[in-house]
Amino acid sequence: MRFGYIGLGIMGRPMTLNLLRAGFSGTVWARRAERMEPLVAEGAQRSASPAELAASVDVVFVNVSDTPDVEEVLFGAHGVIQGAKPGLVVVDHSTISPTATMRMADRLAEKGVDMLDAPVSGGEQGAISGTLTIMVGGKAPVLDKVRPLLEAEGKTITHVGDHGAGQMAKACNQLIIAQTMMGIAEAFTMAEAAGVDPARVREALMGGFAYSKVLEVHAERMLNRVYKPGFKARLHKKDMAIALQTAADLGLPVPGTALATQLINAAVGQGRGEEDSAVVAEVQRLLAPKA
Amino acid sequence: MRFGYIGLGIMGRPMTLNLLRAGFSGTVWARRAERMEPLVAEGAQRSASPAELAASVDVVFVNVSDTPDVEEVLFGAHGVIQGAKPGLVVVDHSTISPTATMRMADRLAEKGVDMLDAPVSGGEQGAISGTLTIMVGGKAPVLDKVRPLLEAEGKTITHVGDHGAGQMAKACNQLIIAQTMMGIAEAFTMAEAAGVDPARVREALMGGFAYSKVLEVHAERMLNRVYKPGFKARLHKKDMAIALQTAADLGLPVPGTALATQLINAAVGQGRGEEDSAVVAEVQRLLAPKA
Repeated sequence: MRFGYIGLGIMGRPMTLNLLRAGFSGTVWARRAERMEPLVAEGAQRSASPAELAASVDVVFVNVSDTPDVEEVLFGAHGVIQGAKPGLVVVDHSTISPTATMRMADRLAEKGVDMLDAPVSGGEQGAISGTLTIMVGGKAPVLDKVRPLLEAEGKTITHVGDHGAGQMAKACNQLIIAQTMMGIAEAFTMAEAAGVDPARVREALMGGFAYSKVLEVHAERMLNRVYKPGFKARLHKKDMAIALQTAADLGLPVPGTALATQLINAAVGQGRGEEDSAVVAEVQRLLAPKA
Repeated sequence: MRFGYIGLGIMGRPMTLNLLRAGFSGTVWARRAERMEPLVAEGAQRSASPAELAASVDVVFVNVSDTPDVEEVLFGAHGVIQGAKPGLVVVDHSTISPTATMRMADRLAEKGVDMLDAPVSGGEQGAISGTLTIMVGGKAPVLDKVRPLLEAEGKTITHVGDHGAGQMAKACNQLIIAQTMMGIAEAFTMAEAAGVDPARVREALMGGFAYSKVLEVHAERMLNRVYKPGFKARLHKKDMAIALQTAADLGLPVPGTALATQLINAAVGQGRGEEDSAVVAEVQRLLAPKA
């Protein structure tokens, strides 16, 4: 099975590398042509456009930033759909709108192209080590077909449901993390304001019901006040906007998600969008009482 | 070292039993006299009042509901302070106000009585199995003195800081759990509204950064819609009020905590105060879009 990979950024590049190293032959394309070079050096073929790439492979991975970017590489003038033959599978690793995903899957299906939405969690480290969590929406037989490739990219592959269900799981992931971070940021600021060491509070909580991966990983960034990403606040902001829009489309109020989004928006507004989104703790600290 | 135990409820009773079974001799007192019987059957002495109890032991454990209850058993007409000799240690396992705790510790110190605030996490199960997390505030040498007894009650004993620091850690614990539950409740309701199975979403998230003990334990209650406590919503409501009051006293805004409190208050208002506080998911479900 021959693969194509579109989008060779911080995530796409190591994921492509893992596919090549697992023995799959692949063709790559990126908007910035220089991004293809290191992968060509590892044995990948170069292509001139998503359309050309799609014509020569069995599976096309897409890993770009946002909904309009996915729409462009799939349906643009030189998009995947222009070169696709029936039976092609598109696997979208981008984090985008669940509802837009459902529309795209329908549009591809008209040309006999199968789509899986397959956003990931685990960050750059997970992409490099091939230990990503992959949340998949789409048809089970299609997932079965491409599973050997996904297994080269990630460790935990969960078929969540039909088209859009992978994106829905990712939206849930992001909004849960955001609210857990908000809670921990408030807790630490409150402890600090009372003269209690938040590091000791964290230690006391680690073994109990307040334990979370966020308390383990992100809370340490909050304590050290070092916010090397990890996952950038500006991308978390984008993902929270997706979650809020999805809830609004469904007619469901999500007050906690809305509130946590404000905190992330403020972090970006404070010029900290390139830092890990645990930097929301610094926004909460702006409101700490004067000594 | 001889201990006394005041408050033999759902937590105090199994904790006392573990102390007795570890070989410590103890005296018990409870407002409802019949609660003493099963412990007397296990070898405990009975006492007529907190004052009488305090006069005959080296360490007094207190495990009652709220700040006024602790004040009553310590400083009431027949309170601990009436019988206490200098050198007595009071260990308060109740979850109460950090600031009130500081005042109580000062008042006891005037009589030469040492106090530790030592709220616990881990629920009835943890109390029975002796695996509680104990968060301690107070002086380190006092903690060292009573540590053998605490080790019979719990597994993880953390000295967080000076008087009130244990209560502060517990408040942090409760507000973090409340916000994590709010996030998960919103996520599940959103998935459901889109026709995506929240159980599959949970499964996809378990191995990633959204993992928490709440996602493991409380989220399962939300999925099964069975809310056997665990930890009762009405007690979580009480603890959130403590966290909000503490933040207000400090002059710190905690919007996420305030919002999560509303959800718990609503659960109690819906008549579900005796159920596990994961029942907040049912409050969020009240707002789910009509099919």
